[in-house]
Amino acid sequence: MRVYNFSAGPAMIPDEVMATAQAEFCDFQNCGSGVMEISHRGALFTNVIKRAEANIRELMSISDDYAICFVPGGAWMQFGMVPMNLLNGGSADYADTGTWSSSAIKEASRYGTVNVIASSKDTKYDRIPNIRHWRPTPGAKFLHITSNNTIYGTQYHEFPPTVSDIPMISDMSSDIMSRVINVNDFGLIYAGLQKNLGPSGMALVIIRKDLVKDEALPKWVPSMLRYKNYIEKENMFNTPPTFAVYMLALVTDWLKNQGGLKVIEDINNTKSEAIYEILNQSSFYTSPVQPDSRSKMNVVFRMPTEELEAKFVKEAAAAGMTGLKGHRSVGGIRASIYNAIPLAGVEKLVDFMIEFEKKNR
Amino acid sequence: MRVYNFSAGPAMIPDEVMATAQAEFCDFQNCGSGVMEISHRGALFTNVIKRAEANIRELMSISDDYAICFVPGGAWMQFGMVPMNLLNGGSADYADTGTWSSSAIKEASRYGTVNVIASSKDTKYDRIPNIRHWRPTPGAKFLHITSNNTIYGTQYHEFPPTVSDIPMISDMSSDIMSRVINVNDFGLIYAGLQKNLGPSGMALVIIRKDLVKDEALPKWVPSMLRYKNYIEKENMFNTPPTFAVYMLALVTDWLKNQGGLKVIEDINNTKSEAIYEILNQSSFYTSPVQPDSRSKMNVVFRMPTEELEAKFVKEAAAAGMTGLKGHRSVGGIRASIYNAIPLAGVEKLVDFMIEFEKKNR
Repeated sequence: MRVYNFSAGPAMIPDEVMATAQAEFCDFQNCGSGVMEISHRGALFTNVIKRAEANIRELMSISDDYAICFVPGGAWMQFGMVPMNLLNGGSADYADTGTWSSSAIKEASRYGTVNVIASSKDTKYDRIPNIRHWRPTPGAKFLHITSNNTIYGTQYHEFPPTVSDIPMISDMSSDIMSRVINVNDFGLIYAGLQKNLGPSGMALVIIRKDLVKDEALPKWVPSMLRYKNYIEKENMFNTPPTFAVYMLALVTDWLKNQGGLKVIEDINNTKSEAIYEILNQSSFYTSPVQPDSRSKMNVVFRMPTEELEAKFVKEAAAAGMTGLKGHRSVGGIRASIYNAIPLAGVEKLVDFMIEFEKKNR
Repeated sequence: MRVYNFSAGPAMIPDEVMATAQAEFCDFQNCGSGVMEISHRGALFTNVIKRAEANIRELMSISDDYAICFVPGGAWMQFGMVPMNLLNGGSADYADTGTWSSSAIKEASRYGTVNVIASSKDTKYDRIPNIRHWRPTPGAKFLHITSNNTIYGTQYHEFPPTVSDIPMISDMSSDIMSRVINVNDFGLIYAGLQKNLGPSGMALVIIRKDLVKDEALPKWVPSMLRYKNYIEKENMFNTPPTFAVYMLALVTDWLKNQGGLKVIEDINNTKSEAIYEILNQSSFYTSPVQPDSRSKMNVVFRMPTEELEAKFVKEAAAAGMTGLKGHRSVGGIRASIYNAIPLAGVEKLVDFMIEFEKKNR
């Protein structure tokens, strides 16, 4: 029996995708082997990797000015790889909106000067700081943001304005393909797969090709952390994580079948509004997040006592809703409602919340 | 219908392992989610990763002096990560026995001086050079070898003698856990999973703990390429490739059920001897590899013409034996007979070879 799994990541993958992957697990397209057992250079697999890339380009309307790279490791590998390739002793602007942006900042400081140009640390990361009037540091190589913050439940609903010559870079691990964005506003977008796109262990990187200046890099940048090698060899510089690429192809097939990102965005709006409505109406459930910064992917909330929160998590699991415990660093409840959680799953959670409040308030 | 898949990697995974992974793909241990969908920090998954590590320690008799790391990327990531952590401006000795050792050498030269102390390049990598009388370069930080060479079909049947203060490092991607070795003879062993251990996208690294001197590393070594972070955080510094770890746990369960590495080694000896016997007896099939260097994992051979080789590959596939085409850089036939290929698969191939010779000689 499949449950509604509200885990923050690795996270639920659409039921239909899981069923397809299971059905052909041992025998992919009648070749007599599973997709994870076949050569990455054979036609069977190269069709898979090309389909994944084509799906991503179609769903996000990505032009040929951008390359698509499949890189082992998740966002953490990108925290280093991005400045290793694009900072190179210079300075860059970073916005600090939580645990992951802090880690990205710390890692980037290995490779140059980091200017923290906006931060909500002083208010315990309860909001996205206003960077509409962001002032770029002269000479900054790029601006780095974290579009959605899984732990604190915040999300950019408007991006900083694009600034000529200063490409915007976003860690979109937890909200990639959950809504329509204009890729042309960004120089580079990266995302670990394990929230909205597939299993853990690989990152999707979308990079504007003119930013790749391999010849200017120090000798010590390893081959596997040079974007150029992924681009020139069409993600076959080494053996890619083939099963993760395959799952990504299936998930993006599914997104297309749903009607694309505008349709998904509307569903995600409905889903998150349903939960936030409860939080707004209730004095039993409270949101620690400023209203205009609330995430549509990770809805965090608190209850009167930690005992009640533990009871909530336990009883929800028994009712077929798992993964609702908040991150260990902040406590509380966190409902991660990525693309794979259907509206029915959110409705079930909302009904449960209403009943739970009635019984326990 | 499952075939015998002789692909060099990604490669066949034991039928029983694939069947188990398929059966519980959507619902792991009745939790209502697949193993790739659950939190890496929950008890369900931490039991999996601990089991994988315990299995590896048991199968290879690894003492507590060694740490076991699960690192994203395959051998190529290790080509850089090893010298980044252990070379650090000094010099190291490398043996050049084929394409992958050449790549390891090239990558290592980013981080220090590489002394190629033995090479079979002049004889087209048809053998393992004799390094029983290897003379270490004074001050060398380590000796690096490639224990099995997938493309040229060669393998070390005896390792260089251990030299005090100069740890031996081996890329064992294509023969790890195919035979009994003494881990204590090595300072570090690494292997991409996709030949003998599971899917592509992750490497197993076994490292002697006293070699990890993180404080001496240059600032620019990224967090994800520091062994120390994997060791201190028990492979949870970031979200590991959870499904690959799970497959590794299943494959090592299977190896234990087979009776361990001595039993596997005996089977592998029988398998490879069966094919080499044909090559020795035949004038139709010829081996380009010196007899004492022939690999028990990748048996490469040639036939009188390239047309016959193409016919062989095609007819074998039709008979349920796939992946027999040699590497594009050398041509010919390559039968990769990793642990997952059962003796019955090799017997079927041998029968096919005999019949094919009769019909076509």
